[in-house]
Amino acid sequence: MKPSGIITLCSDFGSAMGYVAQMKGVILKINPQARLVDVDHNIPARNIACAALTLEHSAPYFSHGSVHLAVVDPGVGSSRRAIIIETDSAYFVGPDNGLFGFIRNSGQLQALYEIDTARIAPAGNSATFHGRDIFAPAAARLSLGEAPQNFAGLCADFPQEMQTPENRETPDSIEGCILCSDTFGNLLTSITHAELDGLRSKHPQTALCLKYKNLEIPLVGTYSDLPQGAFLAYVGSGGQLEIAINGGNARQKSGAAAGDKVLLKTR
Amino acid sequence: MKPSGIITLCSDFGSAMGYVAQMKGVILKINPQARLVDVDHNIPARNIACAALTLEHSAPYFSHGSVHLAVVDPGVGSSRRAIIIETDSAYFVGPDNGLFGFIRNSGQLQALYEIDTARIAPAGNSATFHGRDIFAPAAARLSLGEAPQNFAGLCADFPQEMQTPENRETPDSIEGCILCSDTFGNLLTSITHAELDGLRSKHPQTALCLKYKNLEIPLVGTYSDLPQGAFLAYVGSGGQLEIAINGGNARQKSGAAAGDKVLLKTR
Amino acid sequence: MKPSGIITLCSDFGSAMGYVAQMKGVILKINPQARLVDVDHNIPARNIACAALTLEHSAPYFSHGSVHLAVVDPGVGSSRRAIIIETDSAYFVGPDNGLFGFIRNSGQLQALYEIDTARIAPAGNSATFHGRDIFAPAAARLSLGEAPQNFAGLCADFPQEMQTPENRETPDSIEGCILCSDTFGNLLTSITHAELDGLRSKHPQTALCLKYKNLEIPLVGTYSDLPQGAFLAYVGSGGQLEIAINGGNARQKSGAAAGDKVLLKTR
Repeated sequence: MKPSGIITLCSDFGSAMGYVAQMKGVILKINPQARLVDVDHNIPARNIACAALTLEHSAPYFSHGSVHLAVVDPGVGSSRRAIIIETDSAYFVGPDNGLFGFIRNSGQLQALYEIDTARIAPAGNSATFHGRDIFAPAAARLSLGEAPQNFAGLCADFPQEMQTPENRETPDSIEGCILCSDTFGNLLTSITHAELDGLRSKHPQTALCLKYKNLEIPLVGTYSDLPQGAFLAYVGSGGQLEIAINGGNARQKSGAAAGDKVLLKTR
Repeated sequence: MKPSGIITLCSDFGSAMGYVAQMKGVILKINPQARLVDVDHNIPARNIACAALTLEHSAPYFSHGSVHLAVVDPGVGSSRRAIIIETDSAYFVGPDNGLFGFIRNSGQLQALYEIDTARIAPAGNSATFHGRDIFAPAAARLSLGEAPQNFAGLCADFPQEMQTPENRETPDSIEGCILCSDTFGNLLTSITHAELDGLRSKHPQTALCLKYKNLEIPLVGTYSDLPQGAFLAYVGSGGQLEIAINGGNARQKSGAAAGDKVLLKTR
Repeated sequence: MKPSGIITLCSDFGSAMGYVAQMKGVILKINPQARLVDVDHNIPARNIACAALTLEHSAPYFSHGSVHLAVVDPGVGSSRRAIIIETDSAYFVGPDNGLFGFIRNSGQLQALYEIDTARIAPAGNSATFHGRDIFAPAAARLSLGEAPQNFAGLCADFPQEMQTPENRETPDSIEGCILCSDTFGNLLTSITHAELDGLRSKHPQTALCLKYKNLEIPLVGTYSDLPQGAFLAYVGSGGQLEIAINGGNARQKSGAAAGDKVLLKTR
């Protein structure tokens, strides 16, 4: 794959202790021309699902041949694999713990490789910081156009699945859950644009609403379609059904938590 | 305008969900050589005044021909205009909601354009994420030296004004307010260096002080001019009169809130 | 020193008011090709020790000829020197307040310079923002390969020492303290890998443990060596003995604070 030179970085490291900077230093030693773009380093600690969703939404906006380095790695030091995934348009590098599960069913998976940690970090490496010692050098070498086979072995299986419950459909409803929230307190649900369209096409004459806790939330096109302070549901910029309050914070007002059930149904 | 290649980004998106990264991906697809610099993405949600002040203070430090992309956009999806402002030395791109009001009276305004959203994002765009779908591509194309007229129409009017109360002057005082605070808890007031100098020139023999709540705060040259723990007022690095505590947090200790009145007066 | 073109930035400025962006604007005006890498701007306000540790751990990962700009500067405006340190492999630029004390004993110190503030910022400069007005232009000019002597004078003495208490050794123990913590709540102690190895070599037959408050924390190789929820101690990625909870937050669970005593001893 012709490299774009871009490496995106996503982790739950925060900014403390320069962990992210250390990864960037390692990368720039190998590829001084790499373009580094932070996706998010404030992923809630060990929240693989949140990182996976962030990555799934962000990666498509980057140029063909970009490398996406993601490290949310509660099992560092255990036997989970260090992997490289090659898709139609990008490389993904990180731990095989579900973080890249969304690629399984995307139809874009080309190849899965397991990084040979002894070859990528021959001088020994920290048992606790694979982001810096294993994933960063692997990403840097891929960004130079080096083949994964130089330091990783082809695998016959698939990256590990995400551990997320599936949505349940009935003829007139879809049950999903709250996946996570953004800075504004907007709640991202597991119900997709496509699922919403499917239910709508079955009930073209009926308005739909989203039931969450004791709320019946109307579906609208955009924030400003409802008065300030009202809960509303709409398809967000990532293609997921979201809950928000016009001018307010839906997470705080509803006391929402990841995993809460939501029900999209005819009114 | 000859482009510097620099695009600065300012928003209230935080780091969550990769919103900022998505904008950067869009920009780098259009201009792979763009130099991206984050101004601040932790602007308090929907706080246009804080973003405007941050932008006004930061933009002058960037090279001639830079593009400043700013998105604090509570009215996204409503009819507020998407605009480009051309000044003597830079482009500003974002929603027309007061965010760029400070340019009206700066004497640097050259032209105002309204972005033709259908031309910049012909394939349809998210109703909720103009930062990514409209402002990012506009900024990227400007950073390549493309003329705004290619995707925006010249307007005869002015960018919208900020909704900030004006300072009130008397012969021996200036009444202003707290605009916002920084990471150290230092309080930025609406009183400028020039206004302070004006009052001083009227009262060359008299010391001035800043009255705030029940405090009479002395004016000093720098932090270390007063003992640890004392409130002090001085002209901050942005040219505004500021209130701080040497070694402490003035926001926490005074319980300050944006909009609080302050009075600069003879002692 | 042949420049790498990389400038790292570390401060306690947070993101508010665009302070960091202003420094970057100044740098890019002088060296438009500079590679800017943020180390951490969320250093706790005025915490020189935390910034020094972050810098000490991060700088070695950057290419030869990089410039490390660090500004945690409670004494700005006082008489503390503005300095440049030249080591075997890098420049460090910032206030002389202990921030660079770790370089004194590293064996890498080549030269110490005091910046001539009148020469670097001839048009007058803010009394409160030396990061932007003095340190940023100095770092930018070094990153272009300019000699420090052009705007700084060689000093015969050493950079100021860090004010950290030294570890106390007995034949079968080492007393140190908690220095700071990271995003996961892992606690970094002042006891180093080398000190641990020294104690181990004296007691090859005996297990060691770390006493902290009323806890006796076992030493392990990596996080996953203990069940979820247990306190454990190990050599972290920075070469320091650390305390963590597998799957949890050791800072919160122990109520740790910087300066707390820890005792490494035979069991």
